[in-house]
Amino acid sequence: MIIESVSHLVALCAKNGIRHAILSPGSRCAPLTIAFARHPEISTKTVSDERSAAFIALGMAQQTGEPVVLVCTSGSAALNYFPAIAEAFFQQIPLLILTADRPPEWIDQYDGQTIFQEEVYGKHVKKSFVFPSLDNSDTSIESAINISTEAIYLAKSFPKGPVHINLPFREPFYPEEGQELILPETKLQIQPTSKVNLNKSTKSFLEENLPRFKRIMIVAGQSKPDPETEEIIMRLSTQKNVVVVTDVISNFQSEFTITQHDHWLGSSNLTQNLKPDLILSFGMSVISKPLKLFLRSTDAINWHIQESGKARDPFQKLTKTIHASNSFFFSWLFKNLEPLYSEFKEKWTSLNQKAKAALPKILETADFGEYTALAEILPKIPKRSKVHLANSMAVRYVNFLGPLDQEIICNRGTSGIDGSNSTAVGCSLVTDEMVTLITGDMAFFYDRNAFWQNYTKPNLRIIVLNNHAGGIFRLIKGPSSQPELEEYFETYQPLSAESLAHEFGFEYNLVNERDELKNTIADFFSPSEHPKILEIQSESKRNAGILSGVKSKMIEALSEN
Amino acid sequence: MIIESVSHLVALCAKNGIRHAILSPGSRCAPLTIAFARHPEISTKTVSDERSAAFIALGMAQQTGEPVVLVCTSGSAALNYFPAIAEAFFQQIPLLILTADRPPEWIDQYDGQTIFQEEVYGKHVKKSFVFPSLDNSDTSIESAINISTEAIYLAKSFPKGPVHINLPFREPFYPEEGQELILPETKLQIQPTSKVNLNKSTKSFLEENLPRFKRIMIVAGQSKPDPETEEIIMRLSTQKNVVVVTDVISNFQSEFTITQHDHWLGSSNLTQNLKPDLILSFGMSVISKPLKLFLRSTDAINWHIQESGKARDPFQKLTKTIHASNSFFFSWLFKNLEPLYSEFKEKWTSLNQKAKAALPKILETADFGEYTALAEILPKIPKRSKVHLANSMAVRYVNFLGPLDQEIICNRGTSGIDGSNSTAVGCSLVTDEMVTLITGDMAFFYDRNAFWQNYTKPNLRIIVLNNHAGGIFRLIKGPSSQPELEEYFETYQPLSAESLAHEFGFEYNLVNERDELKNTIADFFSPSEHPKILEIQSESKRNAGILSGVKSKMIEALSEN
Repeated sequence: MIIESVSHLVALCAKNGIRHAILSPGSRCAPLTIAFARHPEISTKTVSDERSAAFIALGMAQQTGEPVVLVCTSGSAALNYFPAIAEAFFQQIPLLILTADRPPEWIDQYDGQTIFQEEVYGKHVKKSFVFPSLDNSDTSIESAINISTEAIYLAKSFPKGPVHINLPFREPFYPEEGQELILPETKLQIQPTSKVNLNKSTKSFLEENLPRFKRIMIVAGQSKPDPETEEIIMRLSTQKNVVVVTDVISNFQSEFTITQHDHWLGSSNLTQNLKPDLILSFGMSVISKPLKLFLRSTDAINWHIQESGKARDPFQKLTKTIHASNSFFFSWLFKNLEPLYSEFKEKWTSLNQKAKAALPKILETADFGEYTALAEILPKIPKRSKVHLANSMAVRYVNFLGPLDQEIICNRGTSGIDGSNSTAVGCSLVTDEMVTLITGDMAFFYDRNAFWQNYTKPNLRIIVLNNHAGGIFRLIKGPSSQPELEEYFETYQPLSAESLAHEFGFEYNLVNERDELKNTIADFFSPSEHPKILEIQSESKRNAGILSGVKSKMIEALSEN
Repeated sequence: MIIESVSHLVALCAKNGIRHAILSPGSRCAPLTIAFARHPEISTKTVSDERSAAFIALGMAQQTGEPVVLVCTSGSAALNYFPAIAEAFFQQIPLLILTADRPPEWIDQYDGQTIFQEEVYGKHVKKSFVFPSLDNSDTSIESAINISTEAIYLAKSFPKGPVHINLPFREPFYPEEGQELILPETKLQIQPTSKVNLNKSTKSFLEENLPRFKRIMIVAGQSKPDPETEEIIMRLSTQKNVVVVTDVISNFQSEFTITQHDHWLGSSNLTQNLKPDLILSFGMSVISKPLKLFLRSTDAINWHIQESGKARDPFQKLTKTIHASNSFFFSWLFKNLEPLYSEFKEKWTSLNQKAKAALPKILETADFGEYTALAEILPKIPKRSKVHLANSMAVRYVNFLGPLDQEIICNRGTSGIDGSNSTAVGCSLVTDEMVTLITGDMAFFYDRNAFWQNYTKPNLRIIVLNNHAGGIFRLIKGPSSQPELEEYFETYQPLSAESLAHEFGFEYNLVNERDELKNTIADFFSPSEHPKILEIQSESKRNAGILSGVKSKMIEALSEN
């Protein structure tokens, strides 16, 4: 049987910018699988492990900004999507999740492959719908069109995010042999809201209140690259009395912004006279814990800029949300801010420059390990390509080593290690640029099923920092002094990436010391027939020594006058 | 800091039969990790992929019948547990899930590694609790004790199942260096309800109504082995006018019960005069779809026997739930049922015997493939050991080939392929018997992280039926005639188990034809230093041919007079 509601849903997706669907095998979802597979404007791929499938979809949508469709069968398939859906929700990435289901009378009746799918993602989707009875009646088709329209609209509107439709199918699921799928004509163009300008009352508020503040700091949270805003931020940085602090995941780092703060903000001797009185924040989370603790310790107030909705309060200083698009707000700010350089700005800039100058010298004398290897590798990554960073140490090291020229992507929505490989794979499927994933061994092996699909492209490069454990636990206070450290926190794991590389036909390079790395890296980013893995093997204990050594030498260097 | 509420929780677990905890690494959960790791009566293991960790815990609890504790950190870790939790819920397996969380004020504030953890498992846990503020005050400790007691009680009571406690921790998480954990004395013994006898009114109901029925059928759904009930069922089968139908997952198959029904119930010519007028069911789901369709097509009514609560209605004939333990009910039935043999019983028995006699001859002449390989292997599995069957084809083939002497375990709660390896691994950790997993390639590679832990025991044997695809889709009507069959339903996958075996240090055997199999199987179940994998490589198309060939020859054999 051809289910017309499904044909309408698929036609609406195609009409409204959806170009990719990731399907997982199943029989209950056959009407969806077949309709997407047969639609000429939607590219479909099939991925068997739904956990990876969903992160691959997330990696695609993160890159394109358009919803990617996920299709799975009934039962626990939908649950395996959940980690990626939570990540998409908190990272504001549009996904349209279509879970096939059995009809309600068969749920919880010992009749196989059912769970309670309605609303199963709870607060982690923007909205959850149930398709009406799929019986080809006019009213059910009309209702399906309405639901599809609203779901697509929500996925695409600020804040973008995952939207769930549960579709209870009755047999038969399959078209007759040779029966053609007729795609309905649809003219329904779904318009998400366009950019938001500052309204009058906000402008008055700003005009009245902004002059009170003498120590203004702009803090960029995680964002997609946005050249228009970046240009204004650059001008603000260079011409106005404002300090712009940018983590590596903000995609707003440049030579003009503060990028080295993670090195010194934890040291109270160095933070005197650095405290802002106004924090203007935008984007999502920041990576630097010292930055967050520092801002929480100030008496500043925080205005957050975002297009609509409720703002979050990571610094516990939030007093106002300014509803506007970044480019509008910062353009206004540029026109209304004093051009003065203050001692406040001078101090931030000078520390930043000192740190930038000191770091290469400090690293030169440091042992070979993860930190020093990354210092060697990062400058070799092709300009303007894509860099994915896994949680937990990979993103922290790179935050010390930035700024970078590339687009930086990291799953900081939930900060899990569960989908880094798949997210990078998803990204590589929708770009021809080089996609480099920097990851630890725990994240890498956790998500090895990312590569268990038939579409991997050669533009993927993976740097695995393998210390055979969750090395972060030796680097943070607390676990490192417990007798349970090695078994229960670090959790030794014996694998090397070689076997995986062999299994999936990737090129493989192993590096244990600096000279090997220099030789290998020279050629690592040149085009190739297959993806490449570079495994940096190092010892967790030595990495801990390097990290604390660099840190104390940096504090020393910055404390000199 | 030592958090006293946590010490009480752990002491209560130990006092009440909980002997195992599976921990996943994280910092937020450190108070739980350390308390369980230091408790002398609870054995702890750490598993990094939470999806596998939860299925391993499920495999252990499935075997021991006692709750197994799961501990994870905040964020998406809890979501990776979800597939196993749903399986545990529908399969009535006791788990105590302890998810560490950040305090409520930090949820959804862009402050890393948080999701909405409270009630996150929805209807898939028996109950979800939140621990009170963990501040060592008397009232919070009292409340924590009450919550822990109720949670353990619920996990252990009929129907057993997963129970969730979310624990919001504030720093510091770690005891001071050298600080000892003091385990509080607890005398609180939690008593789950004991066996339930038939009450008076049920007895009167049965006495009054049972004589009306002339064609009584007992249908055993999925159950744990239960020697007491088995003995009564055997006597009912051999001495009374009742037909006992048992699938392979019921663990009630024997030479005296109907076990071959899956071969013929789909054929309407053979089902005349087989229809019961009363279905007495117990246990959970049945595997045979022909059995379900057949029972739905009858005019029978269905009484379901279970200790308490709402019964499910897989045959759509349910009119009454009899609240009693199986052994009490069937003992009563034995005393109250006529000893007559009827034509009804005769016909079932005769078909069953015919099928049993015909199958070996039919298989002898069939090509080598999954079906014939399993027919060769099953008799070699050690008696009274444990056999795990993966969904989707593995369990179906074995249902054709039963009865078996072993305990049969299969995740039929949600019928997913997502945790078969891990469940078998969990089982092998709590028994010294041989544990044999029979699985297809999709289920096997889906859950390969089952082996990514440091505790695998040598009593594990894995039979991988590798047709490099989800072969079931070629075997069911519908997908097999679609142009999308190979890419979107079967989904070709190129892996062989050899690389995995090498990676994890398992012994590995590959078999492509019958003679190789005969040689390999002779020694396969002998004790060894490492787990062993036997990979049966076969072609999806040929398997489809064998299955339909056996089926039609069987119908032919049964149709002869």
